[in-house]
Order: sequence, then structure tokens, then C-alpha cells
Amino acid sequence: MIQGIGHIGIFVRDLEASLEGLCNLLGIPRPPIKDNTDWRMKVALVEAGGLQLELVEDYSQETWVAESVRERGDHIHHFCLLSDDLEADLAALGRRGVRAKMPSPVKGLRGKRIIFLESETVGGVSVELSEP
Amino acid sequence: MIQGIGHIGIFVRDLEASLEGLCNLLGIPRPPIKDNTDWRMKVALVEAGGLQLELVEDYSQETWVAESVRERGDHIHHFCLLSDDLEADLAALGRRGVRAKMPSPVKGLRGKRIIFLESETVGGVSVELSEP
Repeated sequence: MIQGIGHIGIFVRDLEASLEGLCNLLGIPRPPIKDNTDWRMKVALVEAGGLQLELVEDYSQETWVAESVRERGDHIHHFCLLSDDLEADLAALGRRGVRAKMPSPVKGLRGKRIIFLESETVGGVSVELSEP
Repeated sequence: MIQGIGHIGIFVRDLEASLEGLCNLLGIPRPPIKDNTDWRMKVALVEAGGLQLELVEDYSQETWVAESVRERGDHIHHFCLLSDDLEADLAALGRRGVRAKMPSPVKGLRGKRIIFLESETVGGVSVELSEP
């Protein structure tokens, strides 16, 4: 079952600078930055009033994440829905016409299995489905 | 004081179509659409696991909202922080280097006083401050 929103995904050019700005805005200490050397991306989770903001910097400059940042600058990219059973939820969503962007879930930056949905099948918005 | 995140703002080309897609994804009934004839924008609030998604269609085609949609298509534009005292919070944020985009708060689409913050002063992201 889908259990609500897990985080908002924000793609940025410079993770250090964005973290500093957002934590200053929220009046909270800066969280640690994790460097995912496989993906060549840095990620940090900011707790903002019960919601997590997931900030991602793609320093590989090679994936669609970096491409998206080159096009739009820093931007809120997606929201993430939590699913306690990805396969069952994808099958149920598929019966309602929702499609995934990838053939099957992959291990995401936070170490959870995730999958992105096809925007056109969910109202035009970027949505991720993730294990809790 | 800032009391957490109130909603995520999503700007879309076709509110009916986006609502249908998102409500189908979430398995919830479609909420009512409010037509703000002053602003010439339609707005709907989708409840998604404790968080509100505010969908906005600017049918005036004349404001920066429509401009943003022409540039990016449907997209998540901002998150909104709730403030129980806009003037006091803006003053406190100002002392930390956060600036507003507008000279003073305006009445937003939901009838609340709101103000947008200058992205460059909050880590590059679009952030709205709103009365609860």
C-alpha cells in the first residue's frame, strides 16, 4: 500500500551552497552529506516540518539529473510516495493506467529500492515510488 | 514562527487533466476546483498522505506562473512554509540574509496572505511563506 509522501526531491548545482541556504532559512543545523561514489552524486536530507527534503547534486555531470539541472538550474524535481510493497503497488497502479519509467525498481541514493513513474500517466508530475 | 511545510505548489497546463492523473495515482476522489476570476487562475488542493499538493493552472496566460509552465511544462514549483506571523518571520529571516521577492505579502489564491522568497537567498529553491 502507498503510505503517503516520503520526501521532496530537489536537484541542485552545488549541494553545500543549497544546504547552507535551506538550513539557514529553516533555522536548523546542517545535516551530513553522503557521497555516493557509485552514482557520483552527493545527497543530503533536510528535515523540514515533518517532511524530508532530499537534496541531490550530480557531480558526474553525466545523468538525467545533471541534465535536468543544466536545463532548469536548482529545482524541486519530484515527490516520493512510500510503498510497503513496490511490486504489488506497481501492479495495482498498472491496472489503473499508471506506468513506470524503468523496467523494474533500482537501488536509489538512500539505499532503498525505488522506481520513477511515467509523468504523463500521473498528471504530468515527476513522482518516485520508494520503499519506506 | 515558522511551523513547517503547508503545501507543495505544482503549476500545470491543464488542471482537470493533472487532477485526474494525480487522484488516480493516489486512489482518492477529485477535490473541487476553485476558479479565482481576479487572478484568472484555477486551483485545487489534493491531500496526499498528510501533505497538500496545490495545483495551479494560470488560464490568464499572462503571469509568471503561465511563463513558468510555458518554459518547463507541468512542474513542481515551490514548497510553502507556514508562518503564524509573516511580518515577524520576515524580519527574523531578513536578519539571517533571507530576502523576499515582493515588497510585502499579497493575498494568494487560497485567500491567505503569502509572500515568495528570493530563491538565491534560500539555497536556490522557490519557497513561499504563508499564513496557516
